[in-house]
Amino acid sequence: MAKNFDFLGRDVVSIRDFKRDQLEHVFESVDALEKKPKSLDAGLQGKMVALLFFEPSTRTYSSFQIAAENLGLKVSGFSNVAASSVSKGETLYDTIKMFEGYETDCFVIRHSMMGSARFAAEATDVPVINAGDGSREHPTQAMVDLYSIRRDFGKLDGLKIGVLGDLKYGRTASSLAYALSNYDVEICFIAPDALQIRPEVELFLNQRGTRFSRETSLATVANTLDVLYVTRIQKERIPDPTEYERVRGLYQVNLETLREAKPSLKVFHPLPRVDELASEIDGTEFARYFNQAAVGLPLRMALLNMVIGGAD
Amino acid sequence: MAKNFDFLGRDVVSIRDFKRDQLEHVFESVDALEKKPKSLDAGLQGKMVALLFFEPSTRTYSSFQIAAENLGLKVSGFSNVAASSVSKGETLYDTIKMFEGYETDCFVIRHSMMGSARFAAEATDVPVINAGDGSREHPTQAMVDLYSIRRDFGKLDGLKIGVLGDLKYGRTASSLAYALSNYDVEICFIAPDALQIRPEVELFLNQRGTRFSRETSLATVANTLDVLYVTRIQKERIPDPTEYERVRGLYQVNLETLREAKPSLKVFHPLPRVDELASEIDGTEFARYFNQAAVGLPLRMALLNMVIGGAD
Amino acid sequence: MAKNFDFLGRDVVSIRDFKRDQLEHVFESVDALEKKPKSLDAGLQGKMVALLFFEPSTRTYSSFQIAAENLGLKVSGFSNVAASSVSKGETLYDTIKMFEGYETDCFVIRHSMMGSARFAAEATDVPVINAGDGSREHPTQAMVDLYSIRRDFGKLDGLKIGVLGDLKYGRTASSLAYALSNYDVEICFIAPDALQIRPEVELFLNQRGTRFSRETSLATVANTLDVLYVTRIQKERIPDPTEYERVRGLYQVNLETLREAKPSLKVFHPLPRVDELASEIDGTEFARYFNQAAVGLPLRMALLNMVIGGAD
Repeated sequence: MAKNFDFLGRDVVSIRDFKRDQLEHVFESVDALEKKPKSLDAGLQGKMVALLFFEPSTRTYSSFQIAAENLGLKVSGFSNVAASSVSKGETLYDTIKMFEGYETDCFVIRHSMMGSARFAAEATDVPVINAGDGSREHPTQAMVDLYSIRRDFGKLDGLKIGVLGDLKYGRTASSLAYALSNYDVEICFIAPDALQIRPEVELFLNQRGTRFSRETSLATVANTLDVLYVTRIQKERIPDPTEYERVRGLYQVNLETLREAKPSLKVFHPLPRVDELASEIDGTEFARYFNQAAVGLPLRMALLNMVIGGAD
Repeated sequence: MAKNFDFLGRDVVSIRDFKRDQLEHVFESVDALEKKPKSLDAGLQGKMVALLFFEPSTRTYSSFQIAAENLGLKVSGFSNVAASSVSKGETLYDTIKMFEGYETDCFVIRHSMMGSARFAAEATDVPVINAGDGSREHPTQAMVDLYSIRRDFGKLDGLKIGVLGDLKYGRTASSLAYALSNYDVEICFIAPDALQIRPEVELFLNQRGTRFSRETSLATVANTLDVLYVTRIQKERIPDPTEYERVRGLYQVNLETLREAKPSLKVFHPLPRVDELASEIDGTEFARYFNQAAVGLPLRMALLNMVIGGAD
Repeated sequence: MAKNFDFLGRDVVSIRDFKRDQLEHVFESVDALEKKPKSLDAGLQGKMVALLFFEPSTRTYSSFQIAAENLGLKVSGFSNVAASSVSKGETLYDTIKMFEGYETDCFVIRHSMMGSARFAAEATDVPVINAGDGSREHPTQAMVDLYSIRRDFGKLDGLKIGVLGDLKYGRTASSLAYALSNYDVEICFIAPDALQIRPEVELFLNQRGTRFSRETSLATVANTLDVLYVTRIQKERIPDPTEYERVRGLYQVNLETLREAKPSLKVFHPLPRVDELASEIDGTEFARYFNQAAVGLPLRMALLNMVIGGAD
């Protein structure tokens, strides 16, 4: 009960703000919820969450919306910026103040601008949950990712985790790395040089004493990994089409790529995927990404409940 | 009670999968609902329906959304594909799997691709209702149409039914024809040759032994019809603008066109209409299309209730 | 109780249809609601409001949506015209008839066409609330504005109220002027000649005997005003870019502009703002626009409750 107050009214802007025991507290709440995801009476009736999605997102939007409905919360906001006054030039600050005036109990914000979630959190006393700000962070996705791996292996400590794809611009890779730094893991960043993990992430991991390496090829490390976390390589990030075709071939995960992998390897992906993760994996024991996606619902229910202040 | 189990968990992909006694069972449920459409306690509280509308549709989307709300169901999904991850290239399969993970109890899907509803139904064990797949089928609209005609005439057997407009590409015309083949009716397809009913529909009707004829002009049959079902002729289907103007004039339904019609003729239209059905008809005894549209609500309530498994 | 019947089932199309005692009745209902905005049991459960927004609007849409949710109403409709059948050419009339068929208890309509709300009100017996029709009127915004000023000053009579910005095309300025004509106020219209208040508004005020003046500069009257109501000057209304830059400079409200103002001056704005109202005002005693925006919620709750016919 007392621990719940760590979260009551707090912002969830960066995964870096969460320490191991706080993450574990979230995960224990999800464990409890997983057993009865639809029947929770959290005492949140009459409260409201504003979902402000300035960028499209089916997955994150829908999981927050359903989480809120399951908790008996009212939902306001928008998932389509073209239908909002933002198309008339309204600022993020004014949009926040408007919904604050409508007695919002929690904001969930996705915005293309890096730092927008922090800006929003400073603009209002109402708790703000970052649902992705540009290429910076996506903290609730990182919680989903950690919880999913932890559930499959019963632990996080001792695992070797490969993170593959566009690690420079993809916000899930950074957020995952920050989150994993709370555990005794070994991270292997697998990407072409131009898309490798950003220096500030490396710096953060070094400060935390987290072991990591950089690889340019999955083949050379596939057989050492417990977990492979795949992310998209976006075509528009690589200027030369020939280079893109080469890179794409090197980083596509399929049965051939995983030929040397441990049989116990588990593959995760924040989704949506395009073609970096072949559908032939779907039916195998490797595939855990749909189970991982499903965690989005109970995890966001648990988080909303803790932040808005429902029953424990 | 036992009959309800025919529908529990079943997909509604094609109207061809429904036989006369099953249609009658749906219609009887609608009869019951029409008497108390807002007060039904179906025991569906806490269940959820995902409305995945990859194409715009006010009418079908809103009737399903309101139907779900009236039944106490939670609603998720999207009505605007631009706001969804589909705009990032996510596949229909992955979208289905995502919402399945969020504990969806029923899918309602509109998609531009023919066969997409069947594909979706095969991808998941959760029941799928086809809300229109390309130019193929629109089974719940066909149920609305049949129920509306049946309510007005007290029966379907023995009626002569004209179906007018773009019968080749319009999905409502095909679905209506398939549905009517369960009854002892005579169908008259009225369209320019280029837009006549597709051969596979004719084949189906022949196999069922349904009487039908093809006409190129409404004038020659107007005085023999009990029912006139009007659909749109879309300008973009006819390459030559002069030809379009000619065709449009021949198939516009107005007071002049209906001068020779039986006084008891009833005119239906799936809506939305553009200019193929003149507003001067609205105030006459012929007009039944707004009443028909209103059937969309109780019919979809009845269907959701039967498929998801509420109280009978 | 009896007075409530003035509103039951009535349309709210133009603020000109409301007399002083009716406005006061609305304001008293808002006073009551302000004390318990989330806990009202209005007996409206099971009723439904259709929000038909043919133009984007975060503020008005969200305040009506949240108001409806707070009252226990079901919400249907659309906030995004591209996702609706209107994009297939459906008329406003047919759209109204469709939602009427789905047992809508109230329409809230925003449409770009002047007179569309009146047209809608004539098309249906269900009450219609105008949420903005082109550059014509925005009656619920006028109620929000009057209530906000009245709350801050404890009265409206005796105030001198400056209305600044694009008074010709901005619908809030006209609606505010019409509403204020019920009170003993003095209005000062401040705008460049090309954007001054329309002749029919002047005519209306003259008929009501309301005192008003026209000014081209805020500076000359700033020190005489009790209230300054700021609206946007839209760039596209002024053909010459050089002229726009000049006009924009003259009408931007900032600390310098308000140097001579009474310390008790209160600044209002219907929002969204762009740059006509400097953010440096936000932290001052002048700023009342965020409080004004927040009134949108209880006022629209009170209005929906009175029109649909909940408990008093």
